[in-house]
Amino acid sequence: MPILNKDMTLCISLSGRPSNIGTRFHNYLYDALELNYIYKAFSTGDLPAAIAGVRGLGIRGCAVSMPFKEAVIPLVDELDASAAAIESVNTIVNTDGHLKAYNTDYLAIQRLVERHAVAPCPVVVRGSGGMAKAVVAALRDAGFTDGTVLARNEAAGRALAEQYGWRVAAQAASCAESDAGQSSDVAVGAGLLVNVTPIGMAGGAESAEQSFSDAAIAAASVVWDVVAMPSETPLIRAARAAGTRVITGAEVIAIQAEEQFVLYTGVRPSPKLVAEASAFSLQE
Amino acid sequence: MPILNKDMTLCISLSGRPSNIGTRFHNYLYDALELNYIYKAFSTGDLPAAIAGVRGLGIRGCAVSMPFKEAVIPLVDELDASAAAIESVNTIVNTDGHLKAYNTDYLAIQRLVERHAVAPCPVVVRGSGGMAKAVVAALRDAGFTDGTVLARNEAAGRALAEQYGWRVAAQAASCAESDAGQSSDVAVGAGLLVNVTPIGMAGGAESAEQSFSDAAIAAASVVWDVVAMPSETPLIRAARAAGTRVITGAEVIAIQAEEQFVLYTGVRPSPKLVAEASAFSLQE
Repeated sequence: MPILNKDMTLCISLSGRPSNIGTRFHNYLYDALELNYIYKAFSTGDLPAAIAGVRGLGIRGCAVSMPFKEAVIPLVDELDASAAAIESVNTIVNTDGHLKAYNTDYLAIQRLVERHAVAPCPVVVRGSGGMAKAVVAALRDAGFTDGTVLARNEAAGRALAEQYGWRVAAQAASCAESDAGQSSDVAVGAGLLVNVTPIGMAGGAESAEQSFSDAAIAAASVVWDVVAMPSETPLIRAARAAGTRVITGAEVIAIQAEEQFVLYTGVRPSPKLVAEASAFSLQE
Repeated sequence: MPILNKDMTLCISLSGRPSNIGTRFHNYLYDALELNYIYKAFSTGDLPAAIAGVRGLGIRGCAVSMPFKEAVIPLVDELDASAAAIESVNTIVNTDGHLKAYNTDYLAIQRLVERHAVAPCPVVVRGSGGMAKAVVAALRDAGFTDGTVLARNEAAGRALAEQYGWRVAAQAASCAESDAGQSSDVAVGAGLLVNVTPIGMAGGAESAEQSFSDAAIAAASVVWDVVAMPSETPLIRAARAAGTRVITGAEVIAIQAEEQFVLYTGVRPSPKLVAEASAFSLQE
């Protein structure tokens, strides 16, 4: 790291339970690109005061995580289309005291659709939380009009599907794939399968479970998991074994962070650097 | 520098025109003492918002410089005696959202009186600005009851002297020593002479001038300059040549910063480390 100096531009994050990922990702790139920036994660018990501090201290950028993604909306000056589309903010850019809010999860989903050249096709999204909303909205806005939300929480799933003009399919609380006969597996036949639940996440109760059935995976063109820790989830492993193309949660995390980085600094790092920074950010 | 991480405690400064001195001093010591802290200077156009940010982001410490030293008083929760004595704040400590304000210039003057074992004696302080107030109050509170304020700005000098029960002596706008005959030089005969004006400061109009006369220096026991850039002012050089004991502005700056460091971290660095950090902070 360079010697710290008064002129460094500060970027921060605000979340209920900060991780080290953003701090390591951004500082790695600042260092590699010789940008006079510095990044540190924060939590807060007083969101309006923290956002006042972003203005009062001239903090250039602020990542926003749970539980502040909606609460921060009335505290900013402008919503980018990416945040307005899902009424959820994960990035604030401060330009001379004007705070503009973005959602780079939404942007990352669209970038990955482009990068992997996934053409609009029938899609099933599993999950109904905040990230599922970003996925559904970004896919719908990218032309995926034939979509189904598969949700454990039926009310949340229905609300999400209705908001974006998709269908909803209920599922049992767990083991939906094994309980349901293949004929009732709505995911079979979809061209794109996306998991946006914690299924397959390390440390969770369902870390060893596979979020879509083998039959659905075999019939799909692309299988996409947003779980990043680990990025080789049971779903991704099964898709690789079946020879189905995959998009991993590591890519989602890296791209959304890259978009934040570009918004804060105006500099787009090379894919190689982003991959290095991403790998560095996940070590500890 | 260590790899930055989410758990680092942030300390900052707020001033109209930030210098690099504090940023370099504190980060040098954090590094040397392996403390998981980070320090950066800021300016602000909105002091209440910046102080809200100190609370909202859990910023541990905040140095306060011109022009915020008085304006910050209504924004904190408690004034330490050092700040209350001179109605001026240069340090805020945030303990779980409770902001206590100190003045470590005042504390530094008292520490140096102790360290150099300067016994109460007749003292002449030249100057009437904010730092002169810290010097007069700290000396008076350390037992220097026989004092004279020598001020170019007669009204400010009188107000300062009256507030702390000292005398005031007017002086001509400049060249007071040469214009005045030795018989009218009120500084002759004082045991302690303290310069708290910009006379002798690099880059100023009076950088080559000597703030007390040779006669006053010869008669004094201790000559003290608060000018730190350079610390070898014409006054200090003349005192060294005359064999009079000196206290330099470099010591004042280093001790007030050391006191801030102790307030923020609870750790008192060794004199050797403070000297190293101080030297490092003045390089650039």
